[in-house]
Amino acid sequence: MPSLELTFLGTGTSQGIPVIGCDCPVCHSTDARDHRTRTSLLVKASDKHFVIDTAPDFRAQCLRERVTRLDAALMTHAHTDHIMGFDDMRRFCEMEDRAMPVFASAKTMAGIRSTFRYAFEDPQPWKNYLRLAPEIIAGPFQLGETTVIPVDLPHGRFTTTGYVLHRGGRKLLAYYTDCSSVPVEAVEAAHGVEVLVLDALRETPHPTHMNFDQALEASRAIAPGSTYLIHLCHEVSHAAKERELPEGCHLAYDGLTISVNGKISLS
Amino acid sequence: MPSLELTFLGTGTSQGIPVIGCDCPVCHSTDARDHRTRTSLLVKASDKHFVIDTAPDFRAQCLRERVTRLDAALMTHAHTDHIMGFDDMRRFCEMEDRAMPVFASAKTMAGIRSTFRYAFEDPQPWKNYLRLAPEIIAGPFQLGETTVIPVDLPHGRFTTTGYVLHRGGRKLLAYYTDCSSVPVEAVEAAHGVEVLVLDALRETPHPTHMNFDQALEASRAIAPGSTYLIHLCHEVSHAAKERELPEGCHLAYDGLTISVNGKISLS
Repeated sequence: MPSLELTFLGTGTSQGIPVIGCDCPVCHSTDARDHRTRTSLLVKASDKHFVIDTAPDFRAQCLRERVTRLDAALMTHAHTDHIMGFDDMRRFCEMEDRAMPVFASAKTMAGIRSTFRYAFEDPQPWKNYLRLAPEIIAGPFQLGETTVIPVDLPHGRFTTTGYVLHRGGRKLLAYYTDCSSVPVEAVEAAHGVEVLVLDALRETPHPTHMNFDQALEASRAIAPGSTYLIHLCHEVSHAAKERELPEGCHLAYDGLTISVNGKISLS
Repeated sequence: MPSLELTFLGTGTSQGIPVIGCDCPVCHSTDARDHRTRTSLLVKASDKHFVIDTAPDFRAQCLRERVTRLDAALMTHAHTDHIMGFDDMRRFCEMEDRAMPVFASAKTMAGIRSTFRYAFEDPQPWKNYLRLAPEIIAGPFQLGETTVIPVDLPHGRFTTTGYVLHRGGRKLLAYYTDCSSVPVEAVEAAHGVEVLVLDALRETPHPTHMNFDQALEASRAIAPGSTYLIHLCHEVSHAAKERELPEGCHLAYDGLTISVNGKISLS
């Protein structure tokens, strides 16, 4: 059976939750699911372990989830809250004594390169330096036996990359973070996927992120096995919102681990 | 009485401790003082609160220490482990609805600008965007009633900025992180300071950081009221090393808060 194990390393919006100096009930919640570091995902297949994005909290997330192996990083875009932990991947370079494959669109790679110029332009021989094997995405690619389909998503006036993962003839995961809508091509690429992970910032509309209504509408169009909502802000109380969601839809939270077993046939 | 309150936000070397995937005793220590985020310092005076450096762990450090006010940031250099939390200062911009004064040498500011280009070159009107008031250091400057004396320090082939803080006619703090030695001008600038904070990576020599022997030698030359060692690596066990240090010398640790009362007269 083709399978993936997904661990949500972070599920929060750019400031994280608690927000510094904020007195709101969610920021003071005693429910650990309300404490959200910046959004990223760990994907484990039998042959490859990889992350989607390296949030500012990447080191703390790796310690929390005891991540000791990383074979690649897939980047969605170069915004601060998705890339600032990038340098901490050097520990995985050190442990395996190799360069880290990093997959990104040309524009995203340029943004990452501008931010982490030293690693791209001034490589060092030290075993614990960040060593990179950058791969600019031009279409579907393989990560071991996983086929990765990149999908353009609008993030306001910006474009991010969504990822749809196939394995063993099954469509296992669609990961669409930081998008203001899901265009028809992205709906088609994800249609019938086993697990859909979707940006859903809050109740009220936002120029660069989907709100709950928009995310749930996209979920209905994609018709996945189940949907997990991410990139949540401190207006969202996990317990209260989870109760309101339709069947098969959940709020993700930091540390949530789910198995994707490929039981759903592709239509 | 002139006084400062210092809180060590982080005291660890670039990978932090625990190091991801490391099985050493210090990385598995149950002594909280062995768990070190990346090095930075919070300085509170009666009129201004400021940080020296914004480590990757800056948000977590602010939450841990309940930092709710920040009036300025002083930057020592633009290496990753000292600047990657820079964007998280935008919460302090938001709370006070103002630009954050950032002090750095011309070279350090250029490095930060290259990394956080959007905030320098593409300012946005949003209240929660990182808004900056960059100040290139050309000599001593005032932060309210605190006089800040910048001092050049060698960090291998690189130069970092040390800071000596005077207040009410007293020399209260010298903060010398990331230096491979303390040159005579920097010894003189810090001489007789009440609290000296010094880079001391580990026992064995390193090309860009002082080891314990070098740091203790610099401390003897500076003759401070007390010395706190920072930027420690996972070879250093807090409890074991603290016992070996001479009187007046200590290992700093994350969360340590000390008062600097200005009781020592300037010689």
